[in-house]
Amino acid sequence: MNPAICLLSGGLDSATSLAVARREDFECYALTFDYGQRHRHEIDAARKIGASLGVVQHVVAPIDLRVFGGSALTSGLAVPKIGPSDGIPVTYVPARNTIFLSFALAWAEVLSSSFIFIGVNAIDYSGYPDCRPEFIGAFEDMANLATKAGVEGRTEMHIRTPLIGMSKGEIISFGRKLGVDFSLTHSCYDPDDAGRACGLCDSCRLRLKGFAEAGFKDPIEYSSENR
Amino acid sequence: MNPAICLLSGGLDSATSLAVARREDFECYALTFDYGQRHRHEIDAARKIGASLGVVQHVVAPIDLRVFGGSALTSGLAVPKIGPSDGIPVTYVPARNTIFLSFALAWAEVLSSSFIFIGVNAIDYSGYPDCRPEFIGAFEDMANLATKAGVEGRTEMHIRTPLIGMSKGEIISFGRKLGVDFSLTHSCYDPDDAGRACGLCDSCRLRLKGFAEAGFKDPIEYSSENR
Repeated sequence: MNPAICLLSGGLDSATSLAVARREDFECYALTFDYGQRHRHEIDAARKIGASLGVVQHVVAPIDLRVFGGSALTSGLAVPKIGPSDGIPVTYVPARNTIFLSFALAWAEVLSSSFIFIGVNAIDYSGYPDCRPEFIGAFEDMANLATKAGVEGRTEMHIRTPLIGMSKGEIISFGRKLGVDFSLTHSCYDPDDAGRACGLCDSCRLRLKGFAEAGFKDPIEYSSENR
Repeated sequence: MNPAICLLSGGLDSATSLAVARREDFECYALTFDYGQRHRHEIDAARKIGASLGVVQHVVAPIDLRVFGGSALTSGLAVPKIGPSDGIPVTYVPARNTIFLSFALAWAEVLSSSFIFIGVNAIDYSGYPDCRPEFIGAFEDMANLATKAGVEGRTEMHIRTPLIGMSKGEIISFGRKLGVDFSLTHSCYDPDDAGRACGLCDSCRLRLKGFAEAGFKDPIEYSSENR
């Protein structure tokens, strides 16, 4: 068996990315971050998804990005509810994927794994710079110079982005085919106390648009007035 | 004033790197990591060094690399005391500089800073892959694709490594010229309970060799039998 580190946020993209790794018979080590996000329901969702897809081990790594401030998801800024605006949204977390991939790289090195799966996509990607293929390629180049294995020429690190060219609708259709249980996933930036999605934040809008495109009903619960 | 993020470990390299940034009139934001290292005296040392060199703000960011294991500095492996061996030592922490620079990048983005100072050197570098200029260059390329500012063409990130071409002896001579108080610095991988250096680990050996080369006496205390 071949080990792979699979970044798993609790959302539907990373769940589908993990399902791709499982279909390719990777031994999957799921990595979720507890970075003081307001939507902690994501972490619970990640645990359930990991278990449902048969990961070998699941680490929830605490990292505190609040020490630097700078994002509606980790500081006190309001999450926008009026639909996507131009440019990079306030929900962008500085250097988030760089930090996440760096931790994944550390674990990959410990496990002698050459594969990291991340569910980024460059189509419906909310305008985040660290979801673009150029960024992923540059990270891969850097990773191959950062590690013992790279230096000793023993292995080459591959950052796998199986969803990078897909629309949200295509990801949902693909995930469904792979048997992802979307009822376990969580996307909302601003859920209510019961964990129900708001239906209005950028992430909910993208998700609902994706299900509409894929032509089936989103199985999660929304606050009734917004559905 | 121009803000710069300065990685500060508590050792003499990062102290000297910070002193370079201060001499260039950067407004310095010091960043130290509490990564469950056994030599916690490093963190106390970093605080004193930051204060002595007039940093604007000092953040000690907790990160837990022990969840992945894999190094004598963060797991239960014994620190070697018999002098440097061939290849990459067991005290290597997987992807450490990648993770440290990623956090620095997040803070740089929040502060709209284009400069990160890191005290790596490629001469007496203990054989760590992530201390080499190739690695630093690749990180810089990646950083410029990872951030809002990079994408919007507003700025270019510079990873400054003022010590990269220097021997330990040269760093010590340079730091002394810049007014670094080496009595505040801590290098030992395995200090005693009082925080005194062992004099035998790779890091102590490099330090003592450096002071010998620079031609003056190391002002810190060592366990008496090893000095």
